[in-house]
Amino acid sequence: MTDLAARICAGDVRSVARAISLIERNDSSVVGLLSELYPYSGKAYRVGITGPPGAGKSTLTGRLAACFRRAGNSVGVLAVDITSPFTGGALLGDRIRMQALTADPGVFIRSMGNGGQAGGLCRAAQDAVRVMEAMGKEVVLVETAGAGQTEVDVVHQVDAVVLVLVPESGDEIQVLKAGVLEIADVIALNKSDRPGADTLVRELGEMVHGQGEMDGWETPLVRTVATEGRGVEDVFEKLEAYRVHLNTGGRLARLRGVQAKREVKERLREVVLARLDARWDAGEMEAAVAEVCGGGKDPYRVAMEVARGYV
Amino acid sequence: MTDLAARICAGDVRSVARAISLIERNDSSVVGLLSELYPYSGKAYRVGITGPPGAGKSTLTGRLAACFRRAGNSVGVLAVDITSPFTGGALLGDRIRMQALTADPGVFIRSMGNGGQAGGLCRAAQDAVRVMEAMGKEVVLVETAGAGQTEVDVVHQVDAVVLVLVPESGDEIQVLKAGVLEIADVIALNKSDRPGADTLVRELGEMVHGQGEMDGWETPLVRTVATEGRGVEDVFEKLEAYRVHLNTGGRLARLRGVQAKREVKERLREVVLARLDARWDAGEMEAAVAEVCGGGKDPYRVAMEVARGYV
Repeated sequence: MTDLAARICAGDVRSVARAISLIERNDSSVVGLLSELYPYSGKAYRVGITGPPGAGKSTLTGRLAACFRRAGNSVGVLAVDITSPFTGGALLGDRIRMQALTADPGVFIRSMGNGGQAGGLCRAAQDAVRVMEAMGKEVVLVETAGAGQTEVDVVHQVDAVVLVLVPESGDEIQVLKAGVLEIADVIALNKSDRPGADTLVRELGEMVHGQGEMDGWETPLVRTVATEGRGVEDVFEKLEAYRVHLNTGGRLARLRGVQAKREVKERLREVVLARLDARWDAGEMEAAVAEVCGGGKDPYRVAMEVARGYV
Repeated sequence: MTDLAARICAGDVRSVARAISLIERNDSSVVGLLSELYPYSGKAYRVGITGPPGAGKSTLTGRLAACFRRAGNSVGVLAVDITSPFTGGALLGDRIRMQALTADPGVFIRSMGNGGQAGGLCRAAQDAVRVMEAMGKEVVLVETAGAGQTEVDVVHQVDAVVLVLVPESGDEIQVLKAGVLEIADVIALNKSDRPGADTLVRELGEMVHGQGEMDGWETPLVRTVATEGRGVEDVFEKLEAYRVHLNTGGRLARLRGVQAKREVKERLREVVLARLDARWDAGEMEAAVAEVCGGGKDPYRVAMEVARGYV
């Protein structure tokens, strides 16, 4: 085992921070390190916290971290910011608030950004979770901020998902219905002291009703006011109940199996593209490019012809 | 030439709409059609309109379409909505407003969504622009809505970029500076009757100053109030000046060359992934998956080993 891997497994915070920085940069040494750490990962309860911007995800995440700590779990928090090129950088304040909320050196917090690029961030988040597991964290909270498919992708890597909504989300419920609601294992209706909360709870209740018939878990709705801590303990209890549910009847093992299969596929796609790009950079496709640029051929046919030479 | 391609080249609106629907679905017949249309594309002035949500891009796009029409150009408008899974669907109203604004059957308007998935949307947008060119549009306006890398990618396919900002963008200027400002050929400072407009104009002016030394074009700043039509004619005139600039000294040909090269690369990546996925679906990698799921190997090494068998 390399020094860095050994120090991570011993829980050394600076080594963990360094490893995550290497992951963010997609450093060439990362695959070897992650390969070493892999046998020491996979043991934490991985909880995703997702929802629209402004729903209060960071505050809730910080409070939940405190709940898990009080229950005796060591906790890692990974905040994944998919920043827009137009609106990036707004989330730093949230991170600072979260750190203050937990105020516990036993909680390891790391935020991970992308500067506007979604590609690679899912992979990086998954790798960072593994590093936190290898360092010994028993619970890892993954908060996704921003908008887009990346949230849904990150969520595919965790064991439980808390969807955070606010009364203002009511107008978007029809959109949520198509895809997002299905990924929620617990729904926190945050800022529930605002107008519209009752309506939203009723509407959501109708949507999730009957969901549990398939596997015995009906997504609970919890009203919260995270800034005041109201309802947070409830969310925590639902998450603990879900952990018990997952550990029953081989559910967690099956879930991890599905995730592992998806991961091999994703990483294979990624490695294939990286190798293809290396060949491109080496000039291997220049003749094909010339056929399009001035050669009178179209990029559709040329791409097809070149691809056949590889896969 | 197939019937559909012939009807598109004859300007038949229903055939164009059908082709774009095929593109959106990534129908298997699409590559053949686009390959046929390719020689008839590439002749329009392609203008991207981009900027943060709420900047008034749709209104400005509709007004600019009217300007180009008055100048005697046939116009196509493509509105690309990268909707978030949490906030999708909010843009339909914009589309309707835009249609009312132009109120001209000579303007072909099409909006293209993704339901939250960014992947494939850039490709689809590029293909839709080509179809509009093949139908004879002399100017194609591509408006991007939403947040993320897709905007920047779409912008790489056009000839000129209008970046639409609002006084409220002032706080984000430092972020914009890193990447987004560079892609702007014209900056419209919209809602410029609001507080903060003078400050933003001054700050932006400092940033773009001197930019033109390289290729003779310094990004002009234009104050607009698009809802009232103020300043829109100015933006139009700057775009026309930029068109003249592009057509001087072989600039457009060089730009299109760079774009064609980038496109071959992107399409090659896409075709390679599609072929890889087909092999995955056919079960070709099942043994490798089994090595991870229960086999004690890690997904990093396995992906690397499998990839070497292809590329």
